[in-house]
Amino acid sequence: MKELKGACIIGQSGGPTAVINASVCGAIATALKNPSITQVLAAKNGIKGILEDNLFDCGKEAEIELALLPNTPAAALGSCRYKLKDSAEDDTDYKRIVEVFKKHDVRYFFYNGGNDSMDTCNKVSKYMRDVGYDCRVIGIPKTIDNDLAATDHCPGYASAAKYIATSTAEISLDNKVYGKGAVIILEIMGRNAGWLTAAAALANEIGEGPDLVYLPEVAFDVEKFLSDVESVYKEKGVCIVAVSEGIRDKDGKFISEYGSNGEKTKDAFGHTQMGGLASTLVSLVKARTGAKMRGIEFSLLQRCAAHCASKTDIVEAYMAGAAAVANAALGRTDMMVGLKRAAGENYKCDIVMVPLEEVANEEKKVPRAWINEEGNNMNQEFIDYALPLIAGEPDRVVENGLPRFAHLKMEKVQ
Amino acid sequence: MKELKGACIIGQSGGPTAVINASVCGAIATALKNPSITQVLAAKNGIKGILEDNLFDCGKEAEIELALLPNTPAAALGSCRYKLKDSAEDDTDYKRIVEVFKKHDVRYFFYNGGNDSMDTCNKVSKYMRDVGYDCRVIGIPKTIDNDLAATDHCPGYASAAKYIATSTAEISLDNKVYGKGAVIILEIMGRNAGWLTAAAALANEIGEGPDLVYLPEVAFDVEKFLSDVESVYKEKGVCIVAVSEGIRDKDGKFISEYGSNGEKTKDAFGHTQMGGLASTLVSLVKARTGAKMRGIEFSLLQRCAAHCASKTDIVEAYMAGAAAVANAALGRTDMMVGLKRAAGENYKCDIVMVPLEEVANEEKKVPRAWINEEGNNMNQEFIDYALPLIAGEPDRVVENGLPRFAHLKMEKVQ
Repeated sequence: MKELKGACIIGQSGGPTAVINASVCGAIATALKNPSITQVLAAKNGIKGILEDNLFDCGKEAEIELALLPNTPAAALGSCRYKLKDSAEDDTDYKRIVEVFKKHDVRYFFYNGGNDSMDTCNKVSKYMRDVGYDCRVIGIPKTIDNDLAATDHCPGYASAAKYIATSTAEISLDNKVYGKGAVIILEIMGRNAGWLTAAAALANEIGEGPDLVYLPEVAFDVEKFLSDVESVYKEKGVCIVAVSEGIRDKDGKFISEYGSNGEKTKDAFGHTQMGGLASTLVSLVKARTGAKMRGIEFSLLQRCAAHCASKTDIVEAYMAGAAAVANAALGRTDMMVGLKRAAGENYKCDIVMVPLEEVANEEKKVPRAWINEEGNNMNQEFIDYALPLIAGEPDRVVENGLPRFAHLKMEKVQ
Repeated sequence: MKELKGACIIGQSGGPTAVINASVCGAIATALKNPSITQVLAAKNGIKGILEDNLFDCGKEAEIELALLPNTPAAALGSCRYKLKDSAEDDTDYKRIVEVFKKHDVRYFFYNGGNDSMDTCNKVSKYMRDVGYDCRVIGIPKTIDNDLAATDHCPGYASAAKYIATSTAEISLDNKVYGKGAVIILEIMGRNAGWLTAAAALANEIGEGPDLVYLPEVAFDVEKFLSDVESVYKEKGVCIVAVSEGIRDKDGKFISEYGSNGEKTKDAFGHTQMGGLASTLVSLVKARTGAKMRGIEFSLLQRCAAHCASKTDIVEAYMAGAAAVANAALGRTDMMVGLKRAAGENYKCDIVMVPLEEVANEEKKVPRAWINEEGNNMNQEFIDYALPLIAGEPDRVVENGLPRFAHLKMEKVQ
């Protein structure tokens, strides 16, 4: 392998997770020690920071602040949602990227994100090869949605899953204090894949899980749902339902678009919006059963609750960042870091390198066989898959009862 | 003091908190060791359990399960919302209580709850004295609302406050990852007192608090609110607003009743309901600013999130339960355990015994001087008051990444 000397750029993209900064921490720490890497740059707000030449030098950040990154949620480098055009159609952005890379002698590019970010990695990598600019590009996976192909799971998912399972269990206990309780609808993120909603079922391991679970992977039947809820509530006097925001009927229409009277709901600007699902279902169940109802959305908290992160997830996220740098230094490029579950009784994941083409724009859904036949709860296969991921408590620094987050200076490099 | 030998009953009432079971744990542990107390009974579902003679013997519970109580949220004994009539009007319930107390030779009654529960304590205590049944009655305070009079604060408040402050900080970080973010409306419990909503401001200690805070203590002016939000959003590109569910306009009308077009909203049965406040404000702000909007309700989680409890709160809740038993054994009755802040730089609270009459049906609000002049954020006085309360992390037992809650057998005593 030819040694390639030069700077690296690390960037973050897409929605935050509780552990995305653990990956950045792993990448920075590894890059700072690597003799081939001459400068460790970070892009402010992902690819946008590169286009704007808005970069900062991680070597100038205080070590203590870098060490706090693994327990700091959201994207410490700043994130973006920016989709590169096809270079054949418009190569303006690509030319600019090469220009900025040349200016700082960047030879390594690490991009931390989900499907779209892997697409960005893939496009940048191909363009660099086509124009003969020697640069190694590695994607570092992250997404609470857990929908990336070619990896056992995605860093970020497990912490969201742990938050959802823990909160579901606490809500379930709370709902039983009067004997007879409410029907509670938990609305959970996941437009196309039900991984997060499925995680609520982990709370069944301690007897406080949802009675019913509905994922986008199975067509949602309102009548069946109402009779499911009615029969649980009649028997138990309480009922916890976990639903994905993305559940659709057999015609593919989002249930969140039904409105409480079966009509579509739109916002002030006429856009049909996600998010009103819980209240729609609350109205429907209330009309049918007369039960006390409550809709709860985990909302942003499921992706940023670092206070309830999984240590396994933090460690794996760090490992993924570190492996990206180590593998690039070894000559690999155009790949994403993946996790492969090792055989054997005890949970263990190994790092594997996956071609970006296998990942970009693919979407991994929950296997139908992991959902029960009725389509209203999870099977043991899912529990066996997800339970090991949420193990371990985070070693957070807490001062005066409040989390101590990392603060980076982010001084712009000229 | 005359020694009074007999059984005790411990009961819980009203909405749960993250630490209400710490108080029960303190009371049970102390009672089990007290030579005057012959049997430690617990009432299933509070006063309802007494009326139904549905009691269980805490001495028969496994020690390990009792030890898990301080980190188990919701009411482990079961709770109720049952208001005793005035005995002068109808003494049926009171006669029944005396009957059940006599049957089990109950001489001590400890009731763990909020305003209504202290009212119940007070009524039971007076009736017992009037009919000459020797029984000592002590109230153990709990409420996330923090609205009990004659105590510095209420066990349960601090853990809810910590959850709210921590979650607000995490949401604030999340909202900044793209540079320009959303206007986020955090809807927080508290119909008449703003203590919980004020707690969001604690996150300002780490620079991630709400930009605007609105409590029920100050009349809410929609126009002022809209211009407050507009000016923060224009300057910062993000805006976090914390609002109490109970905010009212100058005529006393709940803002949650306005509806998104300024009209009252009612549920399917025509009841005007709390809870739609965030979505009402979201619609109003969106129409005015066009900003990306998100409404987040902390909902039940703010009262049951034991995974983010304050250790200070757990310890004080335990102390309150223990002090109730110790003081009753010393001859005190008709009192509530209160907390009194000791003078000096370092935070410390001492136990004080407060006559129930000073507490029952009183409601303590946030002092106006602790809210800024504009009525849209908190002053330092509040921070100084609340910050010490949230210190310390809970020592939770976590197995396989999930909380290990206490499981009581609750075998009915014949």
